Amino acid sequence: MPRGRTKVANPATARRILAAAEKHFAAQGMAGARTEEIAAAAHANKAMLYYYFGNKRRLHRAVLENLLRQLRTSVYVAAPKGATARERLWAFFRAYFDFLASHPNYPRLVQREAMESTRDFEWITREYLRPFHTHLVSNIEDGISSGEFRRLNPEHAAFTIMGMTTSYFAAAAILSKVAGKDLLAPQALEVRKQSLLDFMEHALTRPKARHT
Amino acid sequence: MPRGRTKVANPATARRILAAAEKHFAAQGMAGARTEEIAAAAHANKAMLYYYFGNKRRLHRAVLENLLRQLRTSVYVAAPKGATARERLWAFFRAYFDFLASHPNYPRLVQREAMESTRDFEWITREYLRPFHTHLVSNIEDGISSGEFRRLNPEHAAFTIMGMTTSYFAAAAILSKVAGKDLLAPQALEVRKQSLLDFMEHALTRPKARHT
Repeated sequence: MPRGRTKVANPATARRILAAAEKHFAAQGMAGARTEEIAAAAHANKAMLYYYFGNKRRLHRAVLENLLRQLRTSVYVAAPKGATARERLWAFFRAYFDFLASHPNYPRLVQREAMESTRDFEWITREYLRPFHTHLVSNIEDGISSGEFRRLNPEHAAFTIMGMTTSYFAAAAILSKVAGKDLLAPQALEVRKQSLLDFMEHALTRPKARHT
Repeated sequence: MPRGRTKVANPATARRILAAAEKHFAAQGMAGARTEEIAAAAHANKAMLYYYFGNKRRLHRAVLENLLRQLRTSVYVAAPKGATARERLWAFFRAYFDFLASHPNYPRLVQREAMESTRDFEWITREYLRPFHTHLVSNIEDGISSGEFRRLNPEHAAFTIMGMTTSYFAAAAILSKVAGKDLLAPQALEVRKQSLLDFMEHALTRPKARHT
């Protein structure tokens, strides 16, 4: 939704445009996607699209912001009272994985932005990605202090955990061709999640703190 | 280089066009990149570009194929005689990492293709990515058989190793902003490489086979 707009004539139309834009921007990027096609897919017209979102760039920002707000709500879920650093990290990972599984356009949209690193992307870094990263690094540092995790580089462990999780979803279409099966099928996703937890368990956790 | 073309009037011009195209396609994607700009960046003109490469799609394919051939040459280097599965996997990983570090356009180009999963991408899967994956899975299976590696899912371990390595380079521009430092500086790359090797060592290798 655009900021500072107080009147919305038909919020259902705006939501349909946002949903259609999410798909088109994920598949074709901002340069490749066409507002005519987005409006048609949303059963709206270009005038409505411009009325609600101003222009293509602002529509693109609204799409990203809509997803990032949902992600923030998902991953900062309160861990159970008295949860250890390891339990908090596992909860963060599971929430992030589940968000990716249920929002298939998100990793491609963000990875496109990350590759292009436009000036428009600075607000995403400032408001979302840097806080996520700081949260994750601090969680890993807590686990090292508590003795649950090995002494490893917390910043790089954070990059690795995010990268090994996100890359699978971003490349799922082609990895499915490489592997000869649908890697986004529910059972395949469960295998992926367990495999990542197993990898993290051995890479991070000291043997005596392991739950496997 | 285009296939089946026997006369090349000026190979230096063709190489400059290929190098300029690599940068433009990596930054803007195939839809976003413009042949006029590629030709200008190569100090050539559009007629030369079409003479050597036919059209934008074929130029794009030539760029990818040029990189993938170099990658194949790098990663299939013969490991030392009598190398163990762990030593072979480490050699493969180091070669892949070094290739990414010295070819900054490659991860973005391939990740764009992976996200779009076009029909044109099938030959990359068939000729390059599936063989890489099969090679890696088989190397991990050998390490499980030899007792160097734990019993883990070899296919997912392969996805994880490739994903955690590639994603860092693909997103380096934005991760540098998140971290507040240049993550592609030589010293930062050395820290990254060691951190990934350390992560792999603990995630894959049985304690008694570890070299740390």
